[in-house]
Amino acid sequence: MTELLGRLLEILEEENAFDRTGNEPVLHFVHPEELQKRLSIQLTEEPATKGEIETTIRQTIRYSVKTFSPHFHNQLYAGVDEYGLAGSWLTDVFNTSQYTYEVAPVFTVMERQIIEKSLELVGYPPLPEGDGILCPGGSISNMYGMVMARYKMIPDVKRKGLAGLPPMVCFTSEAGHYSISKGAHWLGLGTDHVYKVKCDEFGRMRPDELKAAIAEVKKQGHLPFFVNATCGTTVLGSFDPLPEIAAICREENLWLHVDACLGGTLLLSKKYRDRLKGIELSNSVAWNPHKMLGAPFQCSLFLVKGKNALHEANCAGARYLFQQDKHYDVSWDTGDKSLQCGRKVDGAKFWLMWKARGTKGLRESVELAMSTVEYFFERIKSRKGFRLVLPRYEGCNICFWYIPPSMQGQQETQEWWNKLYEVTAKIKERMMIEGTLMVGYTPLSYKNIGNFFRMVVTCQPPPTKASMDYVIDKIEKLSVDL
Amino acid sequence: MTELLGRLLEILEEENAFDRTGNEPVLHFVHPEELQKRLSIQLTEEPATKGEIETTIRQTIRYSVKTFSPHFHNQLYAGVDEYGLAGSWLTDVFNTSQYTYEVAPVFTVMERQIIEKSLELVGYPPLPEGDGILCPGGSISNMYGMVMARYKMIPDVKRKGLAGLPPMVCFTSEAGHYSISKGAHWLGLGTDHVYKVKCDEFGRMRPDELKAAIAEVKKQGHLPFFVNATCGTTVLGSFDPLPEIAAICREENLWLHVDACLGGTLLLSKKYRDRLKGIELSNSVAWNPHKMLGAPFQCSLFLVKGKNALHEANCAGARYLFQQDKHYDVSWDTGDKSLQCGRKVDGAKFWLMWKARGTKGLRESVELAMSTVEYFFERIKSRKGFRLVLPRYEGCNICFWYIPPSMQGQQETQEWWNKLYEVTAKIKERMMIEGTLMVGYTPLSYKNIGNFFRMVVTCQPPPTKASMDYVIDKIEKLSVDL
Repeated sequence: MTELLGRLLEILEEENAFDRTGNEPVLHFVHPEELQKRLSIQLTEEPATKGEIETTIRQTIRYSVKTFSPHFHNQLYAGVDEYGLAGSWLTDVFNTSQYTYEVAPVFTVMERQIIEKSLELVGYPPLPEGDGILCPGGSISNMYGMVMARYKMIPDVKRKGLAGLPPMVCFTSEAGHYSISKGAHWLGLGTDHVYKVKCDEFGRMRPDELKAAIAEVKKQGHLPFFVNATCGTTVLGSFDPLPEIAAICREENLWLHVDACLGGTLLLSKKYRDRLKGIELSNSVAWNPHKMLGAPFQCSLFLVKGKNALHEANCAGARYLFQQDKHYDVSWDTGDKSLQCGRKVDGAKFWLMWKARGTKGLRESVELAMSTVEYFFERIKSRKGFRLVLPRYEGCNICFWYIPPSMQGQQETQEWWNKLYEVTAKIKERMMIEGTLMVGYTPLSYKNIGNFFRMVVTCQPPPTKASMDYVIDKIEKLSVDL
Repeated sequence: MTELLGRLLEILEEENAFDRTGNEPVLHFVHPEELQKRLSIQLTEEPATKGEIETTIRQTIRYSVKTFSPHFHNQLYAGVDEYGLAGSWLTDVFNTSQYTYEVAPVFTVMERQIIEKSLELVGYPPLPEGDGILCPGGSISNMYGMVMARYKMIPDVKRKGLAGLPPMVCFTSEAGHYSISKGAHWLGLGTDHVYKVKCDEFGRMRPDELKAAIAEVKKQGHLPFFVNATCGTTVLGSFDPLPEIAAICREENLWLHVDACLGGTLLLSKKYRDRLKGIELSNSVAWNPHKMLGAPFQCSLFLVKGKNALHEANCAGARYLFQQDKHYDVSWDTGDKSLQCGRKVDGAKFWLMWKARGTKGLRESVELAMSTVEYFFERIKSRKGFRLVLPRYEGCNICFWYIPPSMQGQQETQEWWNKLYEVTAKIKERMMIEGTLMVGYTPLSYKNIGNFFRMVVTCQPPPTKASMDYVIDKIEKLSVDL
């Protein structure tokens, strides 16, 4: 086994798979059908030879996107912290499930420590008055919030379901993540019962609109139960005003969940944690250290106030899996707090990374990322051809257009804009084909805006001014003849 | 980065972390509070030194349970295939999400190939008439089945939710996994609306009882919509009779989902796939290669019949994430088929393992595991002190008691049984303290039976007769004075 793993490490080195200089391409783009051929993707009756496996590994390295390149700004995650990666590898070796202390002793105490520190970070009460769990991604963390809220309001819903009840309604902003809608579908609430509250010009939920929406829903005889506030929206990176929203929720007796999957990382920074002021007033929080912070994918936390809250809401009391007569304190077994049975160990890698960096190191990396965001923002603000979607930024995303020379200084008709939207996709295509840069683009349907770039700056690999300048120069060069 | 990872590999070797001889302890048991101290679990402001991190890694290795030991039979999973592990490490390096071809090109074609081969294995129509997705564990795979079934019967439920509808009822056997109940809670159906159908003496769902249950539910004015058949129950490893259940579902127009999380692996074996006869008649299947087969945790497949079925049921049409005007064929983007947004890459490791072993190699490993089950079964059947819970086995679990010498040959009163249940837990405690063996124990509440051992034989590490004999001898030795 170590022979194979040692060989893997050698190949990774030989193929420059850890290159963070940016000298290697971000990707070698190949269309799917062609890629299938090059990888000889077919699984067959006969095993591949050692040589074939080695070739496959080399090709996987070659054709995979280098998310750890300094030129990858395409998603809300990018590279991975090296101690985090070491923690992932270690976790993989011990191939186990997080559900009992019995089979995951070290990982259990590590997860608990991660939860304790995260509760502290959010300003929630410590264990056992606060509680938490690691989830397979932010969508499921948000669903935990919805389930907890529903259970709190109507505990009977666990046994009896929603039949016979009036429609239960969630509120989120029009800029909120679609996981609330997917959650509403799965949880039997229905996507029609997700009320999308209007945002202000900066993409933040308007408290007055929320208040009006709640009143409207009540007038219809429906049952408001859950408000999702977003700290760090997916596209614009906006932060909903928590103190105002919390006041409304208190008044209306509604559960306040904060989707801080993206923005929660700013809690680590003394300078920027103010963006999430009021988060401690909420009932639950979702935070993905696998996004901006660079913890290995998947690493998503759901945190909640209330003693035993998770266990009560989710337990099924399956004694055949969670025996109560074991020789250790079974309150350490987390299995019955969870929706899942087997649950991947996602805490250990984040624990190791945090241990190796210290809270101080994590804070510094967040502050470096944010000051680099500021640098990028200032650079494009006044640069010819660049145009910001918003005249400000709150988190680690900056949205902008690049207007190629041939389109500069013209009358900005609808036709002109439509062309710009197409040009944006075209520039992206060129980045991918050339393999030198990845910055995502997106439309913003609720504002009726077509494609623009969404640049994301994360903590890993540590961003530099040079990597920001590279993005600007590269976009200009790729667009010169458009 | 490679320096740290290289060092990690050295430490893993130095600490014998890959030892599969069974000469190393399965675990070093320490109680949670003590373990916290030994690991210096506190995350602090200051970073740990390199030396401290190294110590931590060594301690993680020392105190983690060696699931890859030949003496670990405690869960439905155990060790990990070495190519699977290499695939995990490779996946970790490229830290990305499975949602688009854009950021996960290689992993996307690998996942698709895994789904194609798995559809073939089950006897489902190929893509695009069959469909599938990798999920974070079997509970969520089973929930996919419930959501698809509900959507198929009442498509409006996606938009309008369950309010106003009669209670929708699921059926599963009394031996079925609790994920159906947890799913019923989350999905808003209510755990009361999970009808637990009676089993025969071997732990298999009784078709006549299912038929009667459906009639009863209908009489109450409730709406049956979903039947879960289990192939490989959690405790006894029993297989529900699929042809009979499928016939009832067809007659009653109910969705048939097969929870083959455990037993699906037998489909790889010519000799044992008969256990799942009729699986091709179902509407959907959940299968966890991370259980018996030894694929790295987490690796769970949800498979379903119907063109575009997953997309239709789950799409939210979030154009800001799944742009339709990209320069490649976006039908390769899987993001909107999924409940999740970011989704961990779970297919590549299984693909690499399958590639390296060939279907042939996987088949042989399953057949070896099953012949080893047979060996164990035959060995304890007639051995003094051992008593089987069932006089047969179907899958890779065998349930039994060990009656220590002092209790042999006595009248088997209720008191005697209660003592045996306690003794079972005691033997387990001794295994853990000594660190020489792990076999799980469990009660079976629906049959009113107390603790017995559940021995599990998996494909990794490849089991041997010697490792079976070891279990028997060790249990006898540990119990000699009980």
